[in-house]
Amino acid sequence: MKESLRDYLVSKQKLIEKEINKSVQSLRVPPKLKESMLYSLEAGGKRLRPILLMASYETYGKESAKVISSAIALELIHTYSLIHDDLPAMDDDSYRRGKLTNHKMFDEATAILAGDALLTYSFEIVSNDPLLSDKEKVDIIKKLSECSGPNGMVGGQILDMEAENRNVSLEELEKIHELKTGELLKFAITSGALLGNASPKQLEALEEFSYYLGLIFQVQDDILDVIGDQEKIGKTVGSDESNQKSTYPKLLGLKGAQDRKMDYVNKAKHALKKADADVSMLSALTDYFSERDY
Amino acid sequence: MKESLRDYLVSKQKLIEKEINKSVQSLRVPPKLKESMLYSLEAGGKRLRPILLMASYETYGKESAKVISSAIALELIHTYSLIHDDLPAMDDDSYRRGKLTNHKMFDEATAILAGDALLTYSFEIVSNDPLLSDKEKVDIIKKLSECSGPNGMVGGQILDMEAENRNVSLEELEKIHELKTGELLKFAITSGALLGNASPKQLEALEEFSYYLGLIFQVQDDILDVIGDQEKIGKTVGSDESNQKSTYPKLLGLKGAQDRKMDYVNKAKHALKKADADVSMLSALTDYFSERDY
Repeated sequence: MKESLRDYLVSKQKLIEKEINKSVQSLRVPPKLKESMLYSLEAGGKRLRPILLMASYETYGKESAKVISSAIALELIHTYSLIHDDLPAMDDDSYRRGKLTNHKMFDEATAILAGDALLTYSFEIVSNDPLLSDKEKVDIIKKLSECSGPNGMVGGQILDMEAENRNVSLEELEKIHELKTGELLKFAITSGALLGNASPKQLEALEEFSYYLGLIFQVQDDILDVIGDQEKIGKTVGSDESNQKSTYPKLLGLKGAQDRKMDYVNKAKHALKKADADVSMLSALTDYFSERDY
Repeated sequence: MKESLRDYLVSKQKLIEKEINKSVQSLRVPPKLKESMLYSLEAGGKRLRPILLMASYETYGKESAKVISSAIALELIHTYSLIHDDLPAMDDDSYRRGKLTNHKMFDEATAILAGDALLTYSFEIVSNDPLLSDKEKVDIIKKLSECSGPNGMVGGQILDMEAENRNVSLEELEKIHELKTGELLKFAITSGALLGNASPKQLEALEEFSYYLGLIFQVQDDILDVIGDQEKIGKTVGSDESNQKSTYPKLLGLKGAQDRKMDYVNKAKHALKKADADVSMLSALTDYFSERDY
């Protein structure tokens, strides 16, 4: 990874973590609820979604505090989805990134409610941001609810569950990933550009870009589950295989999956060209998504 | 109950149920998710919250389709909270209103996701309503997220859980109810009036009214658990006692609880007088809340 990209990622990550902490600490809510919300928010992660949102914004607008509320809201929604995903009734995971999952650290009821609270609070944050116009708030909330709701992320989670323990086609697999992980990435890219006043044509190009970026992210996730370093990725290598999960390497072979990923990288960069702006950071982030080792 | 009030309740209930069905049926989402969302939405209930919202609106504005999206969003959020509340990790209920609870009809994972979907979709509905201005959308979404989030309903649920199996004071009990059930009633009353262009002073009076209305609702719930007709209320009479739940009759005796309720009715109506409008329907609804037998 280039030094400049590493610096960029680290500085944005710090900024986001500071702002998330400030926003949730300011809540006057029952202490146990706040503790549980903060526990999962502070449990690490690369903050890729809010970073993408900021990078997309900066492609069109100059650096600004205007993106913070949307970036925080996005990370809160991502975090709630992980908490609910880890529940015994869902993936039943006891650890995430080497730390106890929320329901193991607290209890199931608290984890369910902490997730509900994070989801609801994300809309409150955007609706209360004094830096946004009413029109901008509505545009962001519309996108956020669409991307994370029944026709977006939650829909993808239902499809993912239904696909467990059976063979799915590559088309089905891509539909699941498009909804389950792609929609939040789409929100990151398009809402950043929207706040930066990108034109409809530019937004269209970026939406296409975000589609391929989501697929790159997922193929690399599947590849890392085969050839990744267990220490680095923070979960058992080979768990997809033992969970009988449908993956790209399983459907296409490892080489086939790697080729497919490069095909997506090319398509993502082609879409970026149509975005008609200095896309160097988004391009560097695409390579980072494709080559990441954890 | 007066015939005119009964007619009002029935006609509004039908309208709301028709609009909810239309809104959720229009979703293009995985069939199982839609089925699970609709199952709980159609599982009955008196639709009191959206009816209150409409009645509050009509106190200031004339009947209009403008309130529909907020009314639907409110009922969706109420329904999601019931689905999550019934989960094994929470109240562990197998039946609600004589029908299987969502996780018993489907499974726990589906119930969790159906709740998440209803919550998220409620914000999408408001943000997409062509009858509202951007300012109105933002005002409604702000109120809705505040009343239903960590500082509102979800906060109340955490406090309620923490209060289980221990004695709580009357102050604690009222705080729990204020958050757990009162906040959504506050949303109903204040957002209806807001859309009807009530003045800040009128809104203040109605917010005070909604506080007492929430308490009336809760005291009557507790009273019905002691002297209610099991058939009518659709749950086992005496379940609070056997669940060691803190209730008004337990803290004040049955007579004391009934007196307390009348005190709240008087305070609610006193607040209504300050609302400076024709509050006859809100006043009739207050009596209905106080005297309902199921």
